[in-house]
Amino acid sequence: MKILAIDSSGLVASVAVVEDDITIAEYTVNYKKTHSQTLLPMLDELKHMTALDLHTIDAVAVAAGPGSFTGLRIGSATAKGLGLALDIPIIPVPTVDALAYNLYGSDRLICPVMDARRDQVYTGLYVFRKAAGQGEGYSMCTVEKQCAVDISQIVERINELGQETVFLGDGVSVYREQIADRIQVDYSFAPACCNRQRASCVAALGMLLYSNGIAETAADHAPDYLRLSQAERERAEKGIRQ
Amino acid sequence: MKILAIDSSGLVASVAVVEDDITIAEYTVNYKKTHSQTLLPMLDELKHMTALDLHTIDAVAVAAGPGSFTGLRIGSATAKGLGLALDIPIIPVPTVDALAYNLYGSDRLICPVMDARRDQVYTGLYVFRKAAGQGEGYSMCTVEKQCAVDISQIVERINELGQETVFLGDGVSVYREQIADRIQVDYSFAPACCNRQRASCVAALGMLLYSNGIAETAADHAPDYLRLSQAERERAEKGIRQ
Repeated sequence: MKILAIDSSGLVASVAVVEDDITIAEYTVNYKKTHSQTLLPMLDELKHMTALDLHTIDAVAVAAGPGSFTGLRIGSATAKGLGLALDIPIIPVPTVDALAYNLYGSDRLICPVMDARRDQVYTGLYVFRKAAGQGEGYSMCTVEKQCAVDISQIVERINELGQETVFLGDGVSVYREQIADRIQVDYSFAPACCNRQRASCVAALGMLLYSNGIAETAADHAPDYLRLSQAERERAEKGIRQ
Repeated sequence: MKILAIDSSGLVASVAVVEDDITIAEYTVNYKKTHSQTLLPMLDELKHMTALDLHTIDAVAVAAGPGSFTGLRIGSATAKGLGLALDIPIIPVPTVDALAYNLYGSDRLICPVMDARRDQVYTGLYVFRKAAGQGEGYSMCTVEKQCAVDISQIVERINELGQETVFLGDGVSVYREQIADRIQVDYSFAPACCNRQRASCVAALGMLLYSNGIAETAADHAPDYLRLSQAERERAEKGIRQ
């Protein structure tokens, strides 16, 4: 199975082409340009470098939220366009799950932290478990589903669980001190090679989701924002005041 | 510290720019083109996409062997050219170590396997250990230094150690059955997002090596082939026959 994967949920823009258990190409940029300037040129670059015939792609996996609203829209719009044009399904991959997948095979509690602004983080808690049977790999299990909460809430939950934890994501630099102040278990932060969104993680996890029947048509796909947008929030607040 | 990293040791060509604990850009291709066609265009692409001023780079980290002789020469020649032109040091990163770093934080024995042809693999054995102290990350420790051996030899060593093992690298597809036939411990294979060379792993490990004083001048740098080249081997054999 050949998957084209996209992650533009955060500061990072990342595209990858993965066939079965091999990443054919991956291109990731963490730079101040907007994703509308980077994502399609990056995809076009991969296409030319690997002489990729888009008609050989079986599905588009996309980091489907939460994340930056504009980023998610750019990612999902790109996925929908490709899905419609190529008549292939879209696999919506929860953003925080895909971020956690960077630490494949770890025995620790994995806590991705994305800065969600307004004093919140998009986060969740995950563990990897070895599947029974020789040669079988690890499955990622969700301990706390992705959510938008205060950093104190997720650290409190980690303290309750009492397990050593590895943090990753762009929220780490923002909340590093607050984590250190509140946490009561042993912890650490993932290094540069595995602490941000990567489209190959979206693809690898997407392939597993697809084998469990998770896919939707391009027409049906929409990102999962987890929260109301600023405009929706302000309209709702005005509604209450009126 | 800002590092430019290169890995062209195997089938994969990968370049990355990493600043401290953030990967600014990474571009990885696993395609049949030769690295002499891909590596510099990929670096040029990253340079333009992230408006990178090469003069802000502090060091070049390169996967310095073992690996494909031609691949290593292309990688090291590129690193030497950049190092000389920019007057910055080169950090030679053992290829197999950098490959193992893909599975950062795993509790298992990590066994990278690169197909070395002539019925041999480039391999090694590694474990990750948590550094003492809250907030401190994991250090990768070498159990068996990178070497060129028969697959049976490394599997025998794994059986002696008796620890669950995760395999990765382009040698897995070649030796999967031989591993399954001989291994006596629980084992698995890493998935697509972390089973091949990535330049950000070379950069992250390179940064650690640099902080331990490992660096050389561009003029001094040479790849570590681990074995004689075919031409050298044939010359030596002829010498014996004469």
